[in-house]
Amino acid sequence: MNDAESLSDDTRSEPGDVGLVEPRDFITTDPFVFDSGQTLPGFTLRYETYGRPNAARDNAILICHALSGDHHCAGIHALTDRKQGWWNNLIGPGKPVDTNKFLVLCSNVLGGCQGSSGPSSTNLATGRPYGTAFPAVTIRDMVRAQQRWLEGIGVPSLHAVIGGSMGGMQALQWAVEFPSKVRKVLAMATTARESAQGIAFNEVGRQAIMQDPDWKKGDYPKTGGPRVGLAIARMMAHITYLSDAGLDRKFGRRRRSIKALANATSEAASPAPAGFEFEIESYLRHQGQSFINRFDANSYLYITRAIDQFDLAAEGTLEQAFAAVEAESLIMGFTSDWLFPPEQNREIALALLRAGKRASYAELNTDLGHDSFLLESPQLYDLVRGFLK
Amino acid sequence: MNDAESLSDDTRSEPGDVGLVEPRDFITTDPFVFDSGQTLPGFTLRYETYGRPNAARDNAILICHALSGDHHCAGIHALTDRKQGWWNNLIGPGKPVDTNKFLVLCSNVLGGCQGSSGPSSTNLATGRPYGTAFPAVTIRDMVRAQQRWLEGIGVPSLHAVIGGSMGGMQALQWAVEFPSKVRKVLAMATTARESAQGIAFNEVGRQAIMQDPDWKKGDYPKTGGPRVGLAIARMMAHITYLSDAGLDRKFGRRRRSIKALANATSEAASPAPAGFEFEIESYLRHQGQSFINRFDANSYLYITRAIDQFDLAAEGTLEQAFAAVEAESLIMGFTSDWLFPPEQNREIALALLRAGKRASYAELNTDLGHDSFLLESPQLYDLVRGFLK
Repeated sequence: MNDAESLSDDTRSEPGDVGLVEPRDFITTDPFVFDSGQTLPGFTLRYETYGRPNAARDNAILICHALSGDHHCAGIHALTDRKQGWWNNLIGPGKPVDTNKFLVLCSNVLGGCQGSSGPSSTNLATGRPYGTAFPAVTIRDMVRAQQRWLEGIGVPSLHAVIGGSMGGMQALQWAVEFPSKVRKVLAMATTARESAQGIAFNEVGRQAIMQDPDWKKGDYPKTGGPRVGLAIARMMAHITYLSDAGLDRKFGRRRRSIKALANATSEAASPAPAGFEFEIESYLRHQGQSFINRFDANSYLYITRAIDQFDLAAEGTLEQAFAAVEAESLIMGFTSDWLFPPEQNREIALALLRAGKRASYAELNTDLGHDSFLLESPQLYDLVRGFLK
Repeated sequence: MNDAESLSDDTRSEPGDVGLVEPRDFITTDPFVFDSGQTLPGFTLRYETYGRPNAARDNAILICHALSGDHHCAGIHALTDRKQGWWNNLIGPGKPVDTNKFLVLCSNVLGGCQGSSGPSSTNLATGRPYGTAFPAVTIRDMVRAQQRWLEGIGVPSLHAVIGGSMGGMQALQWAVEFPSKVRKVLAMATTARESAQGIAFNEVGRQAIMQDPDWKKGDYPKTGGPRVGLAIARMMAHITYLSDAGLDRKFGRRRRSIKALANATSEAASPAPAGFEFEIESYLRHQGQSFINRFDANSYLYITRAIDQFDLAAEGTLEQAFAAVEAESLIMGFTSDWLFPPEQNREIALALLRAGKRASYAELNTDLGHDSFLLESPQLYDLVRGFLK
């Protein structure tokens, strides 16, 4: 038992946070060939790590983020930060993904906009952002870039890959692409193939962005871009992350007066009849507005395209796609998730079982929709903790 | 038995279409006071009728349309028309809403844009479209305007009011507002109060329209307007009318080559990776494009606002709201409708029953989503036919 493991006795201390963390960049100048056949002369992945490698170097866990996520999944960057990383409830000393036991790693995906190479990166050939000249990205490209990074920093294999939503797609792709490097796969609120409805919502978001006059065919300055279109795309997508019942409970038909609103935001111009608006309306607009300050519109196009392309069964059955998998899998669906409904998650587990793999399926009863996988849930925590043992 | 009724023997002839029909305008110069307190010096409702009044003048059925519908619910306007009215499958000689037996009436709603007074109507005071100077409209306003029209053309009472979605809201409002004038109410795929999720989707559509630079605070010329925003709003809304399973069956992950696309439409500019796009994408874009040629963006804002405001239980319980109802009701929910889910329809019937009214609830098993109410369904036809007897 090494030092890290000796700290892991859950009964001895309350779970804590990883605290101050600092992102790092993995930079490679080895060429990268995308699924499309296009090539980059190298790439950068921004990443964070929490916990320490054990002596055997076999305690690494890779966290994969969803569409709008990033590498910052736990802790804070500054003592003044009011928000922790996006999966801070799950990851930390004594938490289900226990940083006392595991070396936890998370990178911003290839094609992203939080420090990893993507459409907003500077194209050294022109001195300006790539824009749509950046190669098209697939989930498999994201995973192969992660593998390069992990190899580059001396992580030869993974105890587990964990992800929800698009993160779950990456986790599954890892098991398929690098079977000998992954011992456990934990994929939740995800799918093995994007549905027509999922593609439809993504396409509306893309159209909102691309039809915004400020998109300029993707060739916009770093400080500009299609902010209106991106906000619309985010507002709509945000609805798909929630649920009818959850929205009803959180907002119902509660209103606020337009006077308060007029002071708060200028987006309210509207023939609203009665001097009020519904709280859900201003909540959604706020979601749209805060998103445009942290996300690049071209990355949104690229990553939703990657999601739409994702189809592990493209060249046969899902069972066949899983033929080489060596990992043990836990797949989780959430009853109120209508973006990646439980059936789509159950289908993954069943295909793994039919392929003769060790796989379990857990369906969690929630009424908070797709985002349930990100929320506090003792049941989820127990399942994750047990599976990682 | 009058002439019309003598034609109604279903066993004698196959159901047919109403054939060539012509819209008419009801124009009143009596002032109309809206729920908001605002007033118009009169209004126009465009409408169609099929079938004939009987001697007792008690065989009128009012059809109420949904958000994007209009007065043209059966027949054709010209022999060259390729499309029939939007509920042609339900309405006609020998059909469930049998024009051999009933005088069927349908008007474009107040606030609409297909000939009835609305934001795109000319404001005689300025010689230009009202735009957002048009008074805010509620479902109750729509219904009170319909009552004026029916009174004006000599229809003192209704055998039935029938509607789905927003049409169902109007049908319920009729029973509440004019209890002595309605004998039967048939409301389907609807709700007694718009949900937070419904408001949320409507608000995204409104933002897409109002943030379009061509909206110009609602003051755009008749030939212009926020076409991009309206198309985005329609694309998104269209997804909510369908279902995951229905989309999967109709489109799945089928693709078409980008070359074909480049010829067909210019909206496809996109970093699509592999020389193809999914059929659901072009289908949705087509939905958006055809909508902007027939719908006014300001009407879209007004009518979605009316839907959002709709809450029969705003001043008490739903049971209390139904206290004065005299009509017999049939409420229908559709299992795959996630915009106005079955529970919301069942709730209406239960409240009517608790209020001591004659009410039934029927839940139809479909996998085609909200739009199921518009589609061919022998089960639906039987229920409608039986209920109208």
